[in-house]
Amino acid sequence: MDQVADERTLDLLFREARTHTGWTARPVSDALLRQAWDLARMGPTSANCQPARIVFVRSPAAKLRLKPALAAGNVDKTMAAPVTAIIADDGAFYDKLPRLFPHADARSWFVNTPSLAAATAHRNGTLQGAYFLLALRAVGLDCGPMSGFDPAKVDAEFFPEGVVKSNFLINIGHGDPAALYPRSPRLDFDEACRIE
Amino acid sequence: MDQVADERTLDLLFREARTHTGWTARPVSDALLRQAWDLARMGPTSANCQPARIVFVRSPAAKLRLKPALAAGNVDKTMAAPVTAIIADDGAFYDKLPRLFPHADARSWFVNTPSLAAATAHRNGTLQGAYFLLALRAVGLDCGPMSGFDPAKVDAEFFPEGVVKSNFLINIGHGDPAALYPRSPRLDFDEACRIE
Repeated sequence: MDQVADERTLDLLFREARTHTGWTARPVSDALLRQAWDLARMGPTSANCQPARIVFVRSPAAKLRLKPALAAGNVDKTMAAPVTAIIADDGAFYDKLPRLFPHADARSWFVNTPSLAAATAHRNGTLQGAYFLLALRAVGLDCGPMSGFDPAKVDAEFFPEGVVKSNFLINIGHGDPAALYPRSPRLDFDEACRIE
Repeated sequence: MDQVADERTLDLLFREARTHTGWTARPVSDALLRQAWDLARMGPTSANCQPARIVFVRSPAAKLRLKPALAAGNVDKTMAAPVTAIIADDGAFYDKLPRLFPHADARSWFVNTPSLAAATAHRNGTLQGAYFLLALRAVGLDCGPMSGFDPAKVDAEFFPEGVVKSNFLINIGHGDPAALYPRSPRLDFDEACRIE
């Protein structure tokens, strides 16, 4: 008998989870954010490169630094969310490969190939962002992911050294179900997939 | 009491799952692939755009078409895997937005902005690839994701119309634990994250 996932957990992670725009006042503890990271970091990345970097914007001062970078439609919900995660990619991820992938000289595959390094950082940082989003749901939090913001402004404010690049944002908290819209349709298998 | 995930399921999806390179002869049914898609498709994408497209390469003839595009180190394990999924992004995803995101004229945000459309297709197609990978594990399958291949060759062979672009591959089957290496280290919270 194969091991398969618990159906209630699949509801929590996939089937019943929603993108939230309204938030209750209930705070989000550091402990829950750490618990979600400890799950998400186990997800696979190319050559175990783990390029995702996350800034959790929580203090009012940090929220105000984020605010000018947000698309108009994302300001109110982001200011109201207990925490906003900036999911970013470390363009110099390869400097950690001697420790993360000790089987080979993986650093040499990337260090002098900037286009491969950038593509690898972005693809794998995005995969890790998705693992993290599902991990947040797994620990009982609600998410509101967004790409409506000015990455240059976020990077200047939060990653001024120019190596880490913002990718997308996730508002995190306990969602207010009253603010939800009806769920939008999803593509069927035969619209998105084929078997050859 | 918050709803949180079942611990055994978190082991299955995150903590005990491994990237497999050896495969048993046991086949993978269409039904399981469809079940995984039905979970993964519920994951969030920007404006519900759902750009991921998947080709499941299963027949010997299709495997032979994929083979010349693979990096040398990925040939044997991919030829041996019961199924190899090509995770790709549809660059013309916006043509489905009138149905997928009926609240606004979202198609107009992308149709004349090719750089935004390409970035949106790639980011969200990658997020969906990660949702799909975890969904495959949820239905009891093992994964071997890879980015070592020539995307131009895969696209010419499987997406000749030039609109859909390959992103990464996932070998799918029932992994042979005897072929696993010890697990490589992961970054701690304080190495990858900060709270502001």
